Order: sequence, then structure tokens, then C-alpha cells
Amino acid sequence: MTRVRMILQYDGTGYEGWQRQLTGLGVQQVVEEEIERLTGEKTVVHASGRTDSGVHALAQVAHFDTASRIPPEKFAYALNAGLPRDIRVAYSDEAEGFHARFDVLKKHYRYRLQHSPHADPFTRNTALHVYGALDVEAMNEAARAILGQRDFAAFRASGIEPESTVRTIYESRWTDAGRLVTYDIAGSGFLYNMVRILAGTMAEIGMGRRGVSSMQKALASGLRSDAGPTAPAAGLVLTRVEYRNFDTKEFIPCQTYW
Amino acid sequence: MTRVRMILQYDGTGYEGWQRQLTGLGVQQVVEEEIERLTGEKTVVHASGRTDSGVHALAQVAHFDTASRIPPEKFAYALNAGLPRDIRVAYSDEAEGFHARFDVLKKHYRYRLQHSPHADPFTRNTALHVYGALDVEAMNEAARAILGQRDFAAFRASGIEPESTVRTIYESRWTDAGRLVTYDIAGSGFLYNMVRILAGTMAEIGMGRRGVSSMQKALASGLRSDAGPTAPAAGLVLTRVEYRNFDTKEFIPCQTYW
Repeated sequence: MTRVRMILQYDGTGYEGWQRQLTGLGVQQVVEEEIERLTGEKTVVHASGRTDSGVHALAQVAHFDTASRIPPEKFAYALNAGLPRDIRVAYSDEAEGFHARFDVLKKHYRYRLQHSPHADPFTRNTALHVYGALDVEAMNEAARAILGQRDFAAFRASGIEPESTVRTIYESRWTDAGRLVTYDIAGSGFLYNMVRILAGTMAEIGMGRRGVSSMQKALASGLRSDAGPTAPAAGLVLTRVEYRNFDTKEFIPCQTYW
Repeated sequence: MTRVRMILQYDGTGYEGWQRQLTGLGVQQVVEEEIERLTGEKTVVHASGRTDSGVHALAQVAHFDTASRIPPEKFAYALNAGLPRDIRVAYSDEAEGFHARFDVLKKHYRYRLQHSPHADPFTRNTALHVYGALDVEAMNEAARAILGQRDFAAFRASGIEPESTVRTIYESRWTDAGRLVTYDIAGSGFLYNMVRILAGTMAEIGMGRRGVSSMQKALASGLRSDAGPTAPAAGLVLTRVEYRNFDTKEFIPCQTYW
């Protein structure tokens, strides 16, 4: 058996997230079915982690095992010939012993606000429209408060009980590019809905609906009710995954359009 | 009657172009129906020009006349409340005596190539995917050859006979941003399919399928067969329209995402 590693890009608009749901199609299922069509083998594709319904990926990492004689680096081309246009394999190679989920060191997400009086047709599925004054400096003050190792109990979807709610955040920064205001976060891992709740809380801080100190308060209390709303899935994209000997950044050289 | 001027943005993917066709919905019709829903008046919306099926607009200019008491600058908000999310009114004002089509001084279009080994899900409806070596310098040499007042008879869709095929080109330039290679053109006006045929011809020059001199040859002969293929509509966007006293550039401050 050969272990094949892939970098996947997908527009999550038309999918119920990475994993198959009762309500609709998952990206995982579409890729697995295309591998089966190509190789005749039923296989499981393991990703670095799940993405929610409507969330996008500029660089999701996944692996699968195959007995096929297709050279691992050719799988990208072979799969793209049959995959729908909203899912692409940007890169593939052989990676003996590699595990897409267990071996993750850092994951990077981006959340985008489209900031203008009127919504924009071209970012309607990839950014959250906001209007009015936005205090990006206050948002950045709140963003800095989560750097380092913290307990993010307040920033997880209710009803889900993970073993630990402590995570390490390496990067947390808003960039104001005028019409687009972008939040970049890198961490050891993220709780369910964590990035969207963080983005929703800081968006409210930027709009003056809550103070910068509410970030500290939620971190300290661990209460979901002290954090802000969960920002819509469409604004979120998985931008990069880092492993000890593999970094998607090297294979997706330019993201000027995002 | 009040003349209302608008800047429209639309993702042309789901439409048969600006004008209604037998085969499907036009952007014009959708906007006219929303005005009627709002004011009770049947009206005609005049644009700076038609865009083809699948072609986009970052800034299309249009006007209409109304007896409604809605303040002209509020029409943008009122119409956006009912328009589909792929059409937005970015700006509206009163413009006595203004005509969106007759008064045009310059129009600007952009054509985008998405240049990488694999197609990109996020630009699948807004750029043409190309792979392999691309000689952007040669493309720019060809682009410069059309500057000034020229006869573009070779660069128009066959079967259509305009009064004159002479147009003035003010800007014609390719920019290589790595994953996106972008062509910007500004002119006094354009023949039917002219920008797409120019882009298709220069893309072939960039890929080494034809020489830079073929541009000069087609200009000189006026024969459609001397020019290259018509590039797909999805890569084309109307980016700016200039009038004597009105320029859409002032109202769309940032296009970082395009």
C-alpha cells in the first residue's frame, strides 16, 4: 500500500462541510468516490480536521492509502479530471508514515469582513458584510489578548465537551485593507466553532457593541454567554496547515485573490 | 420625473448578460422588476453598454427615470433590500440630463488568467485557467501594439457589422501577480467580443502558440481569422466607466479581492 498525501482546495458553499451529513454532501465523500472511480478501491480520506458546512479551504491536507499504480504525484491530475470544479487537488505526493490529523503542528485560519455600505456580490459566499464604523485598533487589542496558551472554554459551541479546552495561539491579527478587513489566526488546534466565535466577538468589539475588556472577561470566566455570536461560516477559510516536515505554504505560492 | 444614476455590481455567472435573452434572465430585467416592485412604475434601465452572458461588472453605470419620491441617493439601499445577492447597487444619485450610454468617455475592462498547474475553485467563474510557461513580456509587447486609434475589424465577432470598427485604446497592459495574470484595457469603446478576442489572442502569444507579430498582422489585415480565439466570458469584468463629470473609480475605493 502507498500512502498518498494531498493538498485540497474547496469552495465550501455547496457542501455540508468536510464530513458527510444526513442533510447533504460532504467534501470527504466526493473525494473518496472519485478515488474509488479511479482505482476501484474503497478508501477513507483523512483530513487535518473537519471544516463546517460552508467553510472553505485554500489548503486542507489529507491522506489515503492505495494499492493503485498511479504515481502519487499524478493523483492530483487524475482526480481533478473527475472532481467537481469547486474541489481541486492542488498537490499530491507519497508520504510514508504521515498522518494528516495526528501530525498537525499548526493550523491557520482566516476570517474576512467585507466592509462597505452595500454588500458585494463577489464576496457574498466568502466574507461577512459589515457596514458603519469599525474600530480595527480595538479589534487588534482584543486579538492580542488571546496570544499564548489559554483556556478557550468560552469560545466553543455549547453541547460539545472536549477533553481539554486549552489551546496555544501563535498568531492573532486583523488587517484593514479597506473594503476587506481580514483576521488571521494560527494555533495548535481549535475547538468546535472557536474561530467563528472569536471573529464574532471581535467584530462586535469593532462595531462598538461590546468593549475590548469583554475578551479578557470571557477568557477568565470560561462562559459561552460572555463571548459574542458565532460569525457565519461563509467568512471562514482554512488557509494553511503546518507539519514537522511539510508546510502547505510552500505549495500555494500566491493568494492575491483571497 | 427624476433621473436616477446607479453604479451596479454583478456576478454575471447566473445571467444571460445585461440584456434579456430568450434563453434566460438578463441583469437589466432583474433590476427593472425590482424598481417596479418598489415604485409601481414600469421603467427602462439604460446601462453604459451591454455585457455578455457570464461577464461580470465591478462598476456598471446605468440610469432610469422615476416619479417616485424615494430620494435618489436612497435607491441603492431600497433596491438592495430586494435584489438577489449576485446583483448590488453600490451607489445611486440624481443626475439630471445624464445618459449612461451616450455620455461615456472611457470604459475599462479586466481579463484574468489563473496561472497554475491546477485550476482554482475560487476563481472558477472569474478567471480562465492556464498552465505551463507563460511569456508575459511577449503578451505585453502585443498589448502595446494596440495603443492609440486603430481599426479593430479583426477583433470583432463575425456576423455583426458596426458602422465603424475604429476605436481608441488608452491603456493596454498585462500584470503578472503569479497565480493571477491580469489584463487591463481602457478604450473609447469596444466592438462586440473585442476584449475577449484580444485576450484570447494574447494568451496564445503568451503560451507560444503564435508570435507577437500576429497581433500587428491581424490589425493590418482586418481579418477575424488572423486573430486568436475568443477567450471565455467568465474571465472578463467591466471594472470602470468614465464620464466627463462622473467616474466610478471614486465610488469603488478598493478592489483588493479581484
